[in-house]
Amino acid sequence: MSKKKSIKDQKNLVMVFTGNGKGKTTSALGMAMRAAGQKKKVLMVQFIKDFLDYGEIKFSKRFPRDIEIYSMGKGYVGILGDKLPLSEHKKAARRALEFARKRGSSGKYFMIILDEINVALNLRLLKMDELIKFIKKLQNKVHLVLTGRDAPKKLIQVADLVTEMKEIKHPFRKGILAQEGIEF
Amino acid sequence: MSKKKSIKDQKNLVMVFTGNGKGKTTSALGMAMRAAGQKKKVLMVQFIKDFLDYGEIKFSKRFPRDIEIYSMGKGYVGILGDKLPLSEHKKAARRALEFARKRGSSGKYFMIILDEINVALNLRLLKMDELIKFIKKLQNKVHLVLTGRDAPKKLIQVADLVTEMKEIKHPFRKGILAQEGIEF
Repeated sequence: MSKKKSIKDQKNLVMVFTGNGKGKTTSALGMAMRAAGQKKKVLMVQFIKDFLDYGEIKFSKRFPRDIEIYSMGKGYVGILGDKLPLSEHKKAARRALEFARKRGSSGKYFMIILDEINVALNLRLLKMDELIKFIKKLQNKVHLVLTGRDAPKKLIQVADLVTEMKEIKHPFRKGILAQEGIEF
Repeated sequence: MSKKKSIKDQKNLVMVFTGNGKGKTTSALGMAMRAAGQKKKVLMVQFIKDFLDYGEIKFSKRFPRDIEIYSMGKGYVGILGDKLPLSEHKKAARRALEFARKRGSSGKYFMIILDEINVALNLRLLKMDELIKFIKKLQNKVHLVLTGRDAPKKLIQVADLVTEMKEIKHPFRKGILAQEGIEF
């Protein structure tokens, strides 16, 4: 009883994974897996990304009661043949945040992961103020994990835990291609 | 067909997650989850750690066909009331590496994660040469993921991908306790 209470009394955390190295989204997925192992529900909302065939999505679909993943982006912004007007990307980002807010308010989730939201902030698809508002509304209800390179300074100030994933060495530099089961 | 072949022809990777920040083991778990999502088998062997109730272990037990996790350490070394002679820790580390080598030789696994092995190397439970031998034997058969802070320089030279997880901010510094589903 008292053990349960002490856990409940603890503060929910705002955690940020940033930096140019590998391991931001995978770390968030690992946390989701760990939480699900403790029978806690996790919601992951992906910004920017619109792929539906990632390994993690296939995996999570097999366990829909534990981990839900939604890719709500419109793909890369302004590069790699992107022809969408920026306003469409912005709409998608706002829709994703609003979706996470609604779901998060239900009290059903132990953790919400906003994957690549740091990138959405940097590309100004979302304003920092919108995220701060989101955090204020939800941080007493649910742990938040925010991923993506170049996390804004203001977010780092607000966060409880920040890890920078720093690239020391990367195989793509040696001409090795992305591989199924590793990169996607 | 040709797509499959091109994937098979690619080099297996030796990946290292190191640094003092959060996200090394969780990132490896996320990679395991991603691989399992692509229907590939993953073996995780944990050094140092001897806990059997981690969220990740509970989770993986529900999907024994996809992800196998074995905690083969004897607990913290030389701290927190550890009374075991160092020789026992060494024996356990060698046993764990040998176990991974045998399993890895089967060709059954897509990925082997040696969790906290960097710490075992630093504490001299294992010699770097033993790990190099292990890598040479297995790197054509399986992807390797090695985690733990303070990865030796020699390992970084051998690796294809190295990410340093750097602590920017950590809630324990603010007196917030480890929480179920987050830290374990």
